[in-house]
Amino acid sequence: MLHLIMQEGHARRGRYETPHGVIETPVFMNVGTQAAIKGGLGADDLERIGTQVELSNTYHLHVRPGDRLIRDMGGLHRFMTWSGPILTDSGGFQVFSLAELRKIKEEGVSFHSHIDGAKIFMGPEESMRIQSNLGSDIAMAFDECVKIPSPYDYVKRSCERTTRWLARCKTALENFNSESDAVNPGQALWGINQGAVFHDLRIAHMQEIASLELPGYAIGGLAVGETHQEMYDTIEAVEQYMPKDKPRYLMGVGTPTNIIESVKRGVDFFDCVMPSRNGRHGHLFTWDGVMNINNRKYDRDPDPIDPRCDCPTCRRFGKSYIRHLVKAQEPLALRLMVIHNLYFYNKLMSEIRSAIEEQRFEEFRSRYSETLARRI
Amino acid sequence: MLHLIMQEGHARRGRYETPHGVIETPVFMNVGTQAAIKGGLGADDLERIGTQVELSNTYHLHVRPGDRLIRDMGGLHRFMTWSGPILTDSGGFQVFSLAELRKIKEEGVSFHSHIDGAKIFMGPEESMRIQSNLGSDIAMAFDECVKIPSPYDYVKRSCERTTRWLARCKTALENFNSESDAVNPGQALWGINQGAVFHDLRIAHMQEIASLELPGYAIGGLAVGETHQEMYDTIEAVEQYMPKDKPRYLMGVGTPTNIIESVKRGVDFFDCVMPSRNGRHGHLFTWDGVMNINNRKYDRDPDPIDPRCDCPTCRRFGKSYIRHLVKAQEPLALRLMVIHNLYFYNKLMSEIRSAIEEQRFEEFRSRYSETLARRI
Repeated sequence: MLHLIMQEGHARRGRYETPHGVIETPVFMNVGTQAAIKGGLGADDLERIGTQVELSNTYHLHVRPGDRLIRDMGGLHRFMTWSGPILTDSGGFQVFSLAELRKIKEEGVSFHSHIDGAKIFMGPEESMRIQSNLGSDIAMAFDECVKIPSPYDYVKRSCERTTRWLARCKTALENFNSESDAVNPGQALWGINQGAVFHDLRIAHMQEIASLELPGYAIGGLAVGETHQEMYDTIEAVEQYMPKDKPRYLMGVGTPTNIIESVKRGVDFFDCVMPSRNGRHGHLFTWDGVMNINNRKYDRDPDPIDPRCDCPTCRRFGKSYIRHLVKAQEPLALRLMVIHNLYFYNKLMSEIRSAIEEQRFEEFRSRYSETLARRI
Repeated sequence: MLHLIMQEGHARRGRYETPHGVIETPVFMNVGTQAAIKGGLGADDLERIGTQVELSNTYHLHVRPGDRLIRDMGGLHRFMTWSGPILTDSGGFQVFSLAELRKIKEEGVSFHSHIDGAKIFMGPEESMRIQSNLGSDIAMAFDECVKIPSPYDYVKRSCERTTRWLARCKTALENFNSESDAVNPGQALWGINQGAVFHDLRIAHMQEIASLELPGYAIGGLAVGETHQEMYDTIEAVEQYMPKDKPRYLMGVGTPTNIIESVKRGVDFFDCVMPSRNGRHGHLFTWDGVMNINNRKYDRDPDPIDPRCDCPTCRRFGKSYIRHLVKAQEPLALRLMVIHNLYFYNKLMSEIRSAIEEQRFEEFRSRYSETLARRI
């Protein structure tokens, strides 16, 4: 259940409860693929940069160090010392993109590990077993994330199978949650809407999975090559068929502009590797747009990345020093830049929440939606 | 001047004043070669792990980002946001080890940068100019660090030249300090004793440089291939000729055992890349000896690296998680391990200081000198 506090148009200000605390929405989840944020950030750092939800990847943790090991260590929360909410993806996206793919069958997918080539089988039950071992607060359904573009008929059949898989996910997780030694018996299953950019398939699929009355729903399979406008149009088409009292999660999105525009269209949850990945390349988000620390003009610039930013990096370090660290290939450079970018995203969401509460989100959107995409 | 608080045998508990605060000795200086500790530690982290003195490398900072740039940014303290004492080496060691060496003349050394091959000339005046631009609290004399073994006659002539260079360093730094725009006009020059493992050359050189009445003296050119016993013997030979009221710095040393044994022989200052470098390879110091996190037995070990350790890593993270981060090549692994090792070294020095104050250093030494070198 998403407790709706305020709405402005389709934009929603909400609150979602998990076994590890309440999530204020709209929210951006911080991606720690292998149970750590790339760039050298630990759970202690997440506490300092306003992170609400940590997101880890089921596939990666399954192959290394293994979900059994993490279960033996008390689950992912204890393993990485993060006491707030955790969402795990289903492994589906990685199975279909990273792994050397072997075969999709009704039962699930056989493939080879990208680490050591070991043969792995993953279907709905296996994904739920792994996520149950990890003990995240929100487990995502095992689905097929189809490429865009893909033929209409293929997408239609894939959606039908994803629906059947979802029913199996639901049964499996209910069983795992009822085991006496479940790591996190309050673990919730969220369904994932697919259908590429075919609006009729998206809607039909959404209606089917909504009937399962899950506690949350994601829009998956976007931000994989379609245009931004196609993405927004697809969200608009499907959003009205998503339950109003459940959180909506747009998977793998995106730029600050994408987030603002999707909040406007009724989305509550986001995740993306962009702030950490771009940070590691020196592309830094500011309230005036995106700056590149590699630019020579910052050589002797002692000012912080963004003087309005209160992040641990901007409160202490100047651009000249950070640029030196980048050129000298000091790992501290990555850490300082990722801290800044994640803090910026978390702060952006906090500003969006305030704006909706105060019924000035549309004003916020027109002020920042384009500005934040500028190259400065 | 070293203010001597207490002595036990040759071991000294002292206090040394700098423009950026008082240093309690014996002390281990934390090496931040390029104005950052490798492994992703910033000046904020140094404050949390008990660092007293940060050490940066003149040669590295001269070639990148350039000492002029750092001067323009207000000096090294402001550039890296470290408000405590900083010591810079002279560049001599790197010039003679890293750089593609061209020619040693009476004036100084011509060589090529290891970064871009650019031709550089460095002599006593150039080293002092660079260190004055960096604005460290303690500048080290420009010397020749001769290889061990080297022929007696070569070492003798090298020492004589190093003495002449030291006199030029003293004049040069006095001039730079008297300039109205000096970054750190209270910058002190410490002399460096050379002479390889020839005790008569060490003693003669020490007597000559002591006559310059500098505020501190280092023993250089050790820990470069001689045995530990040769090193201890050399310290014992030269120590009695070092001024009692000046700090003594054993450059580039060493293991916890080396440090304990050298404190026993009258040394006050240490530096070494060992805790950070070994930490990056998973070799972690504990009060029971050195452990290797790569050992399979730590796979499911939830305990901290050392349960008696209060470092930010041990207070929060377990061995199983750290080992996973190492195997997954997450930069966080390096950070957590370097934090632990540097904290351990800083804590070791604090324990040594307490032991001397309470006249139980010999007891401390017999308890820990061999134990800390064990592989566990």
